[in-house]
Amino acid sequence: MKHALSVTRSDDFAAWYQEVIAEADMAEESGVRGCMVIKPWGYGIWERIQALMDARIKAAGVQNCYFPLFIPLSYFAKEAEHVEGFAKEMAVVTHHRLVSDGKGGLVPDPEAKLEEPLVVRPTSETVIGAAMARWIQSWRDLPLLTNQWANVVRWEMRTRMFLRTSEFLWQEGHTAHADKADAMAEMLRALEMYRSFSEDVLAMPVVAGEKPENERFPGAVSTYSIEAMMQDGKALQAGTSHYLGTGFAESAGIRYQDKEGQQTLCHTTSWGVSTRLIGGLIMTHGDDDGLRVPPLVAPHQIVIVPMLRDNEEDDAVIAYCRELTAELAKVRAFDEPLRVHYDGRAIKAANKRWGWVKKGAPVIIEIGGRDVAGGNVSWLRRDALYNESGKLASTIEPKGDLVARASALIEEIQASLHKEATTRRDANITRGIASLDALAAHFTDGNKYPGWVELGWSRPAGAELEEVVTKLKAHKLTIRNTPMDVATPSGQCIFTGKPAVETIYVARSY
Amino acid sequence: MKHALSVTRSDDFAAWYQEVIAEADMAEESGVRGCMVIKPWGYGIWERIQALMDARIKAAGVQNCYFPLFIPLSYFAKEAEHVEGFAKEMAVVTHHRLVSDGKGGLVPDPEAKLEEPLVVRPTSETVIGAAMARWIQSWRDLPLLTNQWANVVRWEMRTRMFLRTSEFLWQEGHTAHADKADAMAEMLRALEMYRSFSEDVLAMPVVAGEKPENERFPGAVSTYSIEAMMQDGKALQAGTSHYLGTGFAESAGIRYQDKEGQQTLCHTTSWGVSTRLIGGLIMTHGDDDGLRVPPLVAPHQIVIVPMLRDNEEDDAVIAYCRELTAELAKVRAFDEPLRVHYDGRAIKAANKRWGWVKKGAPVIIEIGGRDVAGGNVSWLRRDALYNESGKLASTIEPKGDLVARASALIEEIQASLHKEATTRRDANITRGIASLDALAAHFTDGNKYPGWVELGWSRPAGAELEEVVTKLKAHKLTIRNTPMDVATPSGQCIFTGKPAVETIYVARSY
Repeated sequence: MKHALSVTRSDDFAAWYQEVIAEADMAEESGVRGCMVIKPWGYGIWERIQALMDARIKAAGVQNCYFPLFIPLSYFAKEAEHVEGFAKEMAVVTHHRLVSDGKGGLVPDPEAKLEEPLVVRPTSETVIGAAMARWIQSWRDLPLLTNQWANVVRWEMRTRMFLRTSEFLWQEGHTAHADKADAMAEMLRALEMYRSFSEDVLAMPVVAGEKPENERFPGAVSTYSIEAMMQDGKALQAGTSHYLGTGFAESAGIRYQDKEGQQTLCHTTSWGVSTRLIGGLIMTHGDDDGLRVPPLVAPHQIVIVPMLRDNEEDDAVIAYCRELTAELAKVRAFDEPLRVHYDGRAIKAANKRWGWVKKGAPVIIEIGGRDVAGGNVSWLRRDALYNESGKLASTIEPKGDLVARASALIEEIQASLHKEATTRRDANITRGIASLDALAAHFTDGNKYPGWVELGWSRPAGAELEEVVTKLKAHKLTIRNTPMDVATPSGQCIFTGKPAVETIYVARSY
Repeated sequence: MKHALSVTRSDDFAAWYQEVIAEADMAEESGVRGCMVIKPWGYGIWERIQALMDARIKAAGVQNCYFPLFIPLSYFAKEAEHVEGFAKEMAVVTHHRLVSDGKGGLVPDPEAKLEEPLVVRPTSETVIGAAMARWIQSWRDLPLLTNQWANVVRWEMRTRMFLRTSEFLWQEGHTAHADKADAMAEMLRALEMYRSFSEDVLAMPVVAGEKPENERFPGAVSTYSIEAMMQDGKALQAGTSHYLGTGFAESAGIRYQDKEGQQTLCHTTSWGVSTRLIGGLIMTHGDDDGLRVPPLVAPHQIVIVPMLRDNEEDDAVIAYCRELTAELAKVRAFDEPLRVHYDGRAIKAANKRWGWVKKGAPVIIEIGGRDVAGGNVSWLRRDALYNESGKLASTIEPKGDLVARASALIEEIQASLHKEATTRRDANITRGIASLDALAAHFTDGNKYPGWVELGWSRPAGAELEEVVTKLKAHKLTIRNTPMDVATPSGQCIFTGKPAVETIYVARSY
């Protein structure tokens, strides 16, 4: 069977990923090391993610702010442990002016060297912590719930579009609380927000749980994540939420006067998701014909392509398409008007069709003279593109019937993508592995998509944990997280031989 | 009469401006040179500006993208004329790693010096031009209409919150066209979008017109602006739109194959507005009690303050407020649900009232036990805060009456702010000044708010224009723009003695 992409997932998953991004016209290399240009289709998906996530953030009483791009070097020196975690790979601004080099070029002006270099924010804990210290005086100011949508920069040696780029877009929530219980509740609220967003909006099944100690955000008391399984069986950490204890408050001086008049350290949290979600979406829903975008985040949910023949029928076809566009735009799905796009470009209809297939528009309608004459529409469902004999599964039906079912169709496609991904994820979790050797054997190269392994373990810490991590690393494996909704396991820990006290997922990862 | 601010506009306009920002809790200095922290009320206004402007941008068929924060130095060297205009005051990234200095501090790692420094974007013409050169092949790809919402950095020596900061937030539209007529039409469309947005959304009257040659964006063929009059009579350039001819296309290589198969240079435009609009909003609508936010961009349009007395009545007051909040939230104004906020903070009701007055919430409702008993609401209209005897003009009326009129009230406040600002602007434009001496006399220091002067001039160019600019500069005056909708004047140009061919506004400016 022929597909729209030149590389299939089973041929070469990494090459397939790059081809989806290129053929769906989502992003491209910018010519600036490690930075991508996000093109309209990719950015449109991000705008949908932003809008729907922002509504959830605001509904939780969190207020958006904007903090500076630049952070003075001294803020990082203060926060030594924090910096360690970012491997110090950060973009450093040292000059504020350019001058001519006398040879037709430009150089940083030695006269305009900054007294203190500025770091381009890799995350904003330090600068937001300084603001919180100014803003919080009394228990009445708590909890303080802030968020920002921003670009951040972490100098990356090996980059991969959407998954790991030097500059990326994200939201970072930062909150301060009177006590641990309140901070933990907020950290878990954000985690649950990410979990339900991934499942309900991105149709991407995830496991929410606590990261092992060695994977904690530097300086955090506990780090939780959502982990998604990609189609190659690898895990993608798709969002994190941290309880930071009082350590960050101490170094930034975030204190409040409690009801008894005592100066008390705040407990803080931070949580974030980024454009990486789009990488997860591609590797969850893409197929050998390109991307498939869940309707809730599709910039266009229904695309209408006129099939023109440069003859006298064309005007009627265009008018019919326009009318259909207007009728569908009045329909609502997921409590919003349908996003319907009429594609009037001066290129061949077949190229338009395959363009939208590769972009993953949920429903593609094609209208020719015969449809107009019969009062029909012909349409394709991107999540069920082929029939059993491998032909395009085009449906032809009266226009009114499609308009009447459009809302249900869009909601059904969303559910169907989620179900498909969940079934695949669940089928690729292996249980019952009883030794480290058996675990290693499961992940041999012969097993192309070994998925995740669910294990009970003794929750080792410190040096004992380091030993486990080293053993796993030898097989390119990592501990993903301890899921929140799984019963305490029985049996022994395969690493320590001690009784298992909690469940973990072990997998290869991005 | 006592006011909520300690400095009035007539006392010291500049100090008043800073106090409004502080007391309305919109923004503050960040501790990072030239960068501000935008706090929830200020950022909430920006989010409203973004949402309503973005809808207009999308409705015009412009697609949002995202381009890199960093621009290689060589891109600027290529674009010498372009750089000149930014005075080369740009943040330059020279290193990508920090290391310990051995004394507990951190320094840029000499081993991690970039081969080519990166400039933090001051604007994105160069990097978007490079992308357009990749994306455009044929006439079928035109027009190419892109926009991005982003942060940009221009190193500023003297900064002022919202008006001039080293980092600011903006949108930048960049478009490419087959010919001059199409590019000019797009440039004028963006200008008209800004004009109507300022008037209809920000309630800020503006004059749209062409800037004189000396004020053109470097490399532009023509630059248009919207100019607003602040309450001190100075002009604020609140948005610009440029027709760039083929110069930028030539240096970036933006060419297309026309219908005859010829490689042809594109004509490009760019246009932008920034967080500076918020500075304009403050200086247009603020009064001696703080900010007044036009309802269309107010994060909360109606705020409900419970007046609690720590007694058994409190529960009923809170329940009544909640009920009122829910009822008002079902009302629509300007085709959106009303944005209603219940202020449940544990602080005194009087402090809440004055806090919302200073923030400029359009309607402030206060509910006490007596209101609950009588089924009434007491409310203040921020744009008409005092009655004739200088007391707060509180209205008490049955709850149902307020709910029934809430939509009209909110729309009326929007119109009233626009009318007030337009009347003031029109009253402060002086016409009929017939000599340079008379012009200078009009702007003597004795005339505290001289406003703008409308003149006919001969549209001098080159050296002749430079002479005019120098003469005006001696009186701290600038030419704002040539309005689009004013008839050709008669009489002589006061600068050149030649016949006047067009109208200009002369003013002091921000």
